[in-house]
Amino acid sequence: MSVTYELVKKCSKTGARAGRLHTPHGTFDTPIFMPVGTQATVKAMSPDELKDMGAGIILSNTYHLYLRPGHELVAEAGGLHKFMNWDRGILTDSGGFQVFSLGALRKITEEGVTFRSHIDGSKHFLSPEKATEVQMALGSDIIMAFDECVPYPADHDYARKSTERTTRWAERCKETHTRADQALFGIVQGGMYKDLRSMSAKDLVSLDFPGYAVGGLSVGEPKPLMYEMLEHTVPLLPEGKPRYLMGVGTPDCLVEGVMHGIDMFDCVFPTRVARNGTVMTRSGRLVVKNAEYAKDFRPLDDTCSCYACRNFSRAYIRHLFKTDEIFGLRLTTIHNLHFLLNFMREMRKAILEDRFVDFRQEFLAQFIR
Amino acid sequence: MSVTYELVKKCSKTGARAGRLHTPHGTFDTPIFMPVGTQATVKAMSPDELKDMGAGIILSNTYHLYLRPGHELVAEAGGLHKFMNWDRGILTDSGGFQVFSLGALRKITEEGVTFRSHIDGSKHFLSPEKATEVQMALGSDIIMAFDECVPYPADHDYARKSTERTTRWAERCKETHTRADQALFGIVQGGMYKDLRSMSAKDLVSLDFPGYAVGGLSVGEPKPLMYEMLEHTVPLLPEGKPRYLMGVGTPDCLVEGVMHGIDMFDCVFPTRVARNGTVMTRSGRLVVKNAEYAKDFRPLDDTCSCYACRNFSRAYIRHLFKTDEIFGLRLTTIHNLHFLLNFMREMRKAILEDRFVDFRQEFLAQFIR
Repeated sequence: MSVTYELVKKCSKTGARAGRLHTPHGTFDTPIFMPVGTQATVKAMSPDELKDMGAGIILSNTYHLYLRPGHELVAEAGGLHKFMNWDRGILTDSGGFQVFSLGALRKITEEGVTFRSHIDGSKHFLSPEKATEVQMALGSDIIMAFDECVPYPADHDYARKSTERTTRWAERCKETHTRADQALFGIVQGGMYKDLRSMSAKDLVSLDFPGYAVGGLSVGEPKPLMYEMLEHTVPLLPEGKPRYLMGVGTPDCLVEGVMHGIDMFDCVFPTRVARNGTVMTRSGRLVVKNAEYAKDFRPLDDTCSCYACRNFSRAYIRHLFKTDEIFGLRLTTIHNLHFLLNFMREMRKAILEDRFVDFRQEFLAQFIR
Repeated sequence: MSVTYELVKKCSKTGARAGRLHTPHGTFDTPIFMPVGTQATVKAMSPDELKDMGAGIILSNTYHLYLRPGHELVAEAGGLHKFMNWDRGILTDSGGFQVFSLGALRKITEEGVTFRSHIDGSKHFLSPEKATEVQMALGSDIIMAFDECVPYPADHDYARKSTERTTRWAERCKETHTRADQALFGIVQGGMYKDLRSMSAKDLVSLDFPGYAVGGLSVGEPKPLMYEMLEHTVPLLPEGKPRYLMGVGTPDCLVEGVMHGIDMFDCVFPTRVARNGTVMTRSGRLVVKNAEYAKDFRPLDDTCSCYACRNFSRAYIRHLFKTDEIFGLRLTTIHNLHFLLNFMREMRKAILEDRFVDFRQEFLAQFIR
């Protein structure tokens, strides 16, 4: 198998686990946070900067790359790794989340989804087969099955029908997928219904994917409900395969996800808020544009060892934001990604030393929002 | 003296010369191109990237820093070098060029210039004394006298009066300037009139500045006229002092400037056009956004060794521009600055090997615009 999971250590009190993910582009420690590079670039970052902060796998978006520059062009360039000069891991989503998000611009049938481009209104069709072919052309290490992310709220009937279709689609993805150098992951749906989560997990596990995502969470539901769904769902997944919680990236949710046995995460949160001048710290957030930092010559976070914190002050970074200078959002992006990657490393260390429960409690005690 | 010029080699056929500029923040080879960091950052670049491409001195703008974040704040931060984490050379202009450019927003008297901020309309006053004090607070290695850049066209009478005032202002700057660790350069004006250029140069040289700029060129006049003024003016300046041609940065003008004996240049051109997707090459320019590069997997310039050209294709960089990704303009900025800095190194090598005339002819033969 092209992508395999190696379990290194289990927490003795929770579902948390430390492991390694072996991929055709390297082996990466888990739990892992994957920075999002929607359009074949992690916004404002260079590949070298990502490596410097220890990034292993990044996520890129099939919907966006299919529209621009087009998967054929990426294939012609030698694949996504070569196109964007990134020789570590890449996971691509299936495009399902984006096309379903188009609302009035899309139409769903059993066959697939017809949609109009958010860029120029042109008409397109994505299906399990097409989404898989596009991702095979991109050549990412991990590709995702084409699914519907059940919206929140959804009634049981809708959630059931959608989840059953997602499973049928996952089967069609599997039949289409032929690249031996990439792994196709299934996505567990089921909305906020435990019986549907059970059904989805059972059906997908019987299809024997090399990895499983938990989808349809962090879509607007209260956090306790998300945690409840995780607690219910993750134990239904095989221990020997990697588990990926899609779209989650705030520190509190990462800790809870890890506690429930999740190995992989992605989220636009750290990079998106960085570009608005919001900086992540252990105790919450710092809005560096605020006037209070005008003459604050301390680093963004004095416990941080990132390039931004080693070399620049809050006052300077605030100045860059006030004057709309690109270097400002480069620095906050570096900091936020470094912060999250480091946070994952600290969680892994705590698991290895079997003190994850203490780590979690100390973290939650000082985290404000 | 805090800044001194060391003449290393003179071209046997032209005024071109290779030298070294010794400053409190290092010694730099001349002729040199200084990237522009208007607001305490070279747009889109990190200090490390500038160092990687061999940048020595950068230019920053007094007018902008005076308004935001304010020179007192920069002084409180420990000076401009520390504020922006740049430990090589910094030259600041005097703010004169910017306040005179404000047109209806400014009023000139013998005392100085009253102007309104382009940001919030607030009222300010810059004089030779104030501009010098601001630059002393910033702590740049080289500061410029407060002058009026004679507009083009200007009649002889206006140009004469303005140039005479610039000389009186230069004297006041010199009287105000007290920092031993920075050098105050005088600026030769005189418009497009040789007699006024002679007068300005003579008067300023008698004030014995540690370096001289030629100002008021590249302001809309035909290039041959600029070259004529250079040919007339530069020989009037002392051989043992550095000579700086302000606001010039296209390859053809750089070659001609060097030929006439200029040591230092600055211009926003390479960084500004880079952000619009225009890339500098030996033969002219390449607009990487153009459709013809969509499937062009060659580097921007296959003779270039910059980070962008070593690692990314035209097709990828075009994709980044088409999708408004910041990394695109980072790459074109790196390329353009690297290109110009390398171009200066090549000119210096040609001077050292006494083949500058051949170098110039070969360059002009292939340069299109």
